[in-house]
Amino acid sequence: MDTIIALATPPGVGAIGIIRLSGPDAFRIAGTVFKGKDLGAQPSHTIHFGSIRREDGSVLDEVLTSLFRGPHSYTGEDVVEISCHGSHYILQEVMALLLRKGARLAKPGEFTQRAFLNGRMDLSQAEAVADLIASESASAHAIAMQQMRGGFSNEIKQLRQQLIDFAALIELELDFGEEDVEFADRDDLKALIRRILALMDALLRSFQLGNVIKNGVSTVIAGRPNAGKSTLLNALLNEERAIVSEIAGTTRDTIEEVLHIGGVAFRIIDTAGIREAQDAIEAVGVAKTMEKVRQSALLVYVFDVIRTSPEDLRNDLAQLVHPDTKLIVVANKMDMNPYTTYEQYANEQFGPDAWVPVSALNQMNIEFLKEKLLNAVLEGDINLTHTVVANTRHYEALLKASDSLRDALQAIDARITGDFIAMDIRRALTFLGEITGEISSEDLLDSIFSRFCIGK
Amino acid sequence: MDTIIALATPPGVGAIGIIRLSGPDAFRIAGTVFKGKDLGAQPSHTIHFGSIRREDGSVLDEVLTSLFRGPHSYTGEDVVEISCHGSHYILQEVMALLLRKGARLAKPGEFTQRAFLNGRMDLSQAEAVADLIASESASAHAIAMQQMRGGFSNEIKQLRQQLIDFAALIELELDFGEEDVEFADRDDLKALIRRILALMDALLRSFQLGNVIKNGVSTVIAGRPNAGKSTLLNALLNEERAIVSEIAGTTRDTIEEVLHIGGVAFRIIDTAGIREAQDAIEAVGVAKTMEKVRQSALLVYVFDVIRTSPEDLRNDLAQLVHPDTKLIVVANKMDMNPYTTYEQYANEQFGPDAWVPVSALNQMNIEFLKEKLLNAVLEGDINLTHTVVANTRHYEALLKASDSLRDALQAIDARITGDFIAMDIRRALTFLGEITGEISSEDLLDSIFSRFCIGK
Repeated sequence: MDTIIALATPPGVGAIGIIRLSGPDAFRIAGTVFKGKDLGAQPSHTIHFGSIRREDGSVLDEVLTSLFRGPHSYTGEDVVEISCHGSHYILQEVMALLLRKGARLAKPGEFTQRAFLNGRMDLSQAEAVADLIASESASAHAIAMQQMRGGFSNEIKQLRQQLIDFAALIELELDFGEEDVEFADRDDLKALIRRILALMDALLRSFQLGNVIKNGVSTVIAGRPNAGKSTLLNALLNEERAIVSEIAGTTRDTIEEVLHIGGVAFRIIDTAGIREAQDAIEAVGVAKTMEKVRQSALLVYVFDVIRTSPEDLRNDLAQLVHPDTKLIVVANKMDMNPYTTYEQYANEQFGPDAWVPVSALNQMNIEFLKEKLLNAVLEGDINLTHTVVANTRHYEALLKASDSLRDALQAIDARITGDFIAMDIRRALTFLGEITGEISSEDLLDSIFSRFCIGK
Repeated sequence: MDTIIALATPPGVGAIGIIRLSGPDAFRIAGTVFKGKDLGAQPSHTIHFGSIRREDGSVLDEVLTSLFRGPHSYTGEDVVEISCHGSHYILQEVMALLLRKGARLAKPGEFTQRAFLNGRMDLSQAEAVADLIASESASAHAIAMQQMRGGFSNEIKQLRQQLIDFAALIELELDFGEEDVEFADRDDLKALIRRILALMDALLRSFQLGNVIKNGVSTVIAGRPNAGKSTLLNALLNEERAIVSEIAGTTRDTIEEVLHIGGVAFRIIDTAGIREAQDAIEAVGVAKTMEKVRQSALLVYVFDVIRTSPEDLRNDLAQLVHPDTKLIVVANKMDMNPYTTYEQYANEQFGPDAWVPVSALNQMNIEFLKEKLLNAVLEGDINLTHTVVANTRHYEALLKASDSLRDALQAIDARITGDFIAMDIRRALTFLGEITGEISSEDLLDSIFSRFCIGK
């Protein structure tokens, strides 16, 4: 195993930049460039001040080195972290120096891959590390954290263990193939498989939520010009920005606006104000908006209660709303027309639950609208304290495992012999094992870890 | 003294993000959110794994905390560094949590300011920390490193000590004012002041180089369209990019191209190709180029040896070259016309030393051009192994100190009494003391440290 290095902190100028080494030669390589105490003689989990010297003896930086002796390190190998001044030039020079001394530049995710290969975490936990770093909302963070700490892995392992026990009984039958014994009671087996399928179905159902939470809820705000879309957006965005702005330099360019409600990220896509198409060009505009609505999870339609007639509303919604559209109808400018009611505007395209009267300008009822948005996603029936599947790979493996178990159920009902049942169950076990990495291939690992950032 | 916190790593997504606490309550505040060992009971310079918990007990992150007990820390106070997963969300939440627990957000440079106030470094060393982080070239790094490690401070302190010794003798005379004794021999004093002035003048002269190294050498490349400017620029930039591109995500937008030669950064400003002004609009273009030439340290004029006549060259240079212009004339496309000589193009505007024949396309003589560029800046007479002044504040203080010493010399020559000489010398001492911070004011400190990044 060679010794790998990478910049572990984000690129850019900061107070501190950290270069991480991992591998059997980490201490030796760091020792050749570090002037200070003899690193090889220091205990694990200690920090040492010294300087990094070039081959000609010139001082490259004054640094702190943090030592971790395997297996008590992130990767399970010997690890040295060199904390430099956060200068691009210095970090680049120290990296180049360490490369000359025999280290190799790490591939994306290679530190975490080594942690997995050394048994420091299973595959689903390793994947959660990347999700954790990428998490931008409280709920995405909560899912990744639960997964990283092994919550999801434990559920999968329990499912597997129950199946393994039963598979063992069935396979015992095969040894007595000629004698027609049944160690595994078929009714017990069916009951077990049904129980496991119910658990899997709950996990599979959670994927829609998990996916939405991980990637944000794509939300289209549509409405006619001057309906108050921008004012509404500002009213919604008003919150949860304070802390962000306290940390200098954190602002990033985003194409969409991101709104956090109850820890869920809503990616809000603005659309051009829609009007009844008066010519071919406008029709194209409406078609584009409709396309965006189709691709998104949620449609927030805003209209103003002064100038919009029930017929206008009906026509707009007829153009925009699809059978699958989750719709919220925001009646804006209620302060100017306070006696407007749902009944005046009611039509078959939305029920009273989807009706939210607000005054964006006066921040009236904005909190209620946020609750509505959140409920439209959570739908009340899924609870974030349960395990949520947020990873497409896990979802697909679970789906295949549940298909195999359904095959097994059919086989039992069809009174097919134990060896076929055993095959179905073993297939299910394989798919479940892929989630936690008990069964893995090099291709799979490459595809997972190449999505990490370098240095993790 | 309150306890301050800041993000110490660059903003953005990375493997690791570090939050730094410094102050008397650093251990206590970190301890309220850290679940793991009792931090207060652990020795200095040790690292501890654990988790950060919110008030409701939920896990925000699994982290490593590094402990430094004052005075053996960067600031001289108790310091805790929390190494989190490099997620913007997590870092923001941990910061907010620590703020709720009684920490205060650090001002820019406040950690280093505390290090200065606690005597961990002097003012010129503290300023070097910011320069070190900002350094982008080997030479800027070398100057900042020498300054941070106290090289410059030591020279200033030695100058001061010699003056202090002599000032003490003169002030002793004042105590015997009526008796007309001279403890301080006037010739010795003059010799000393002249010696110190010579040292100061060397430092002052080094500022031009230091400034250029710190900020880069502003270099204008000018020439007619199709002279081969772009090809030349590419040929020059070819090198020293390999290492940079190995570190993912380090690319930054720059307005100018930066070229490193021999550890010095050249900021290359491209100009529109110049032609003989055929109308008023083109004349404006030439005027703009001339303006840029005036503001820059170096002019690289490129022409091609196929289509450019000696008269063309003379005319172009007559427009561009100023008495102060440092000029290098690059004769390009020598492969197409290999017998071209300096003598054919010679005129009074440049000597043979400024003549560099190249073929940009074939990378011919590019290294020689680089040497010429470097020599034009270093001029051979200043050596980077000597102390170089790179900070405008230091330069101005040195200038004022040397003015005061010249006043003292004049006072001695004019046989003015000791108390006036002592005043001049004390003034010089004050200016020198401002460099290292032995004499400082709150305004001065604010203006220095506000230029730091947050977290340092």
